[in-house]
Amino acid sequence: MDAEPGGGELRVIPVRGIGEIRPGDVLAEVVAGVAGTWLLPDDVLVVTQKVVSKAEGRLSPVDPDDPLAHKALVEAEAVRVLRRRGDLVMTETRHGFVCANSGVDVSNVERGWAVLLPLDPDRSARRIRDGLRARLGVEVAVVVSDTFGRPWRRGVTDVAIGVAGLAGVVDLRGSTDALGRELQVTEVCVADEVAAAAELVMGKARGIPAAVVRGVDPAFLREGSVRSEIVRPHAEDLFR
Amino acid sequence: MDAEPGGGELRVIPVRGIGEIRPGDVLAEVVAGVAGTWLLPDDVLVVTQKVVSKAEGRLSPVDPDDPLAHKALVEAEAVRVLRRRGDLVMTETRHGFVCANSGVDVSNVERGWAVLLPLDPDRSARRIRDGLRARLGVEVAVVVSDTFGRPWRRGVTDVAIGVAGLAGVVDLRGSTDALGRELQVTEVCVADEVAAAAELVMGKARGIPAAVVRGVDPAFLREGSVRSEIVRPHAEDLFR
Repeated sequence: MDAEPGGGELRVIPVRGIGEIRPGDVLAEVVAGVAGTWLLPDDVLVVTQKVVSKAEGRLSPVDPDDPLAHKALVEAEAVRVLRRRGDLVMTETRHGFVCANSGVDVSNVERGWAVLLPLDPDRSARRIRDGLRARLGVEVAVVVSDTFGRPWRRGVTDVAIGVAGLAGVVDLRGSTDALGRELQVTEVCVADEVAAAAELVMGKARGIPAAVVRGVDPAFLREGSVRSEIVRPHAEDLFR
Repeated sequence: MDAEPGGGELRVIPVRGIGEIRPGDVLAEVVAGVAGTWLLPDDVLVVTQKVVSKAEGRLSPVDPDDPLAHKALVEAEAVRVLRRRGDLVMTETRHGFVCANSGVDVSNVERGWAVLLPLDPDRSARRIRDGLRARLGVEVAVVVSDTFGRPWRRGVTDVAIGVAGLAGVVDLRGSTDALGRELQVTEVCVADEVAAAAELVMGKARGIPAAVVRGVDPAFLREGSVRSEIVRPHAEDLFR
């Protein structure tokens, strides 16, 4: 039969009702309040960096009329400047992320303020995961996502900057392909793929800073880390 | 009420039943055969490059016992070699893609053969879209996906190498964020995000070379092109 298959399907569900987040807000409490009735075990909750940073108070005043103030902040958040062109500065952050402007963002925040990246986004994810378990008794994986550009390809996509309860990279080494040959491509960054899927229902301008990805392969649901699994060490990097 | 929201949800559905694809097979016919009863207008069908290339006969014999044969093929498919390390060669293809080994792949193909990238993947996607419209009377967008690595981040993710009926990059310039400020990050590569979402249900080793993404924002469903929208021209590239 050609009926639509029921198994192996993924659902990506926007989490509505999250209002403006302020320093000191507890995200697990906010999410439990708007999605507590329908979150299920093994769901993956994706939360944008912006609200995580706001809740954690990672805000810095910046004079909106002084372009140098923004620039100084970007450099203070960088351990290295990789490239400059016009207003764009590609930097490496202390987390090892290579991104525009050290992740410093002045959109979706009150004028005169900039949002900085969380100090330890894996830890931010773990805190939300632990908070949801404590409040709801539900084991949910968490991804903190941010929007990065890429060299060679236009447009930005969302990637994972922190994870908890989800693998960063899944190692398929030793697996065989459908013809029984050993796989050539072996390590899939499922955390980034989950972040990308979530972005499709969130939308920068729609004020939806979280989504639930339901149906992720249970084999991917283990303790994970962006910092230790995804950030590529300098020694193995061909393009730094 | 906290009920699970019904609107704005995305579903990612594996397309099962696609067998081994051989040169000359018509993919629209194969997909219509296994998913024709449940494909809906505005669905996005994601098909992996591997089966597209096989159907198009983009195969090359390669001596499996001679490492230099594979290397020669990789270089023949490249317009430029960007980096080498051991067996890994980062090249630029004639499409403008920067990827490992010019996309030449010897997994999931019979021993003694290599699969090459389609000559014009946007055109491949359009052909499948046109074929599904002709067979089923359904307007479906199509993404041809492939698995690329990234600098700075470990693990591979699926990206779009060809699209039809779906935007490559969505320009949010001029949009305002939830606070009424103009958005800083403006261009989202939705085609790559759709490819990444699809990969989560396909799985390299599971023999599922296609998936349907249902519920994509209708504003993204317009004629698109990877080549003209996503491939970054050298002049604006900071890392080539």
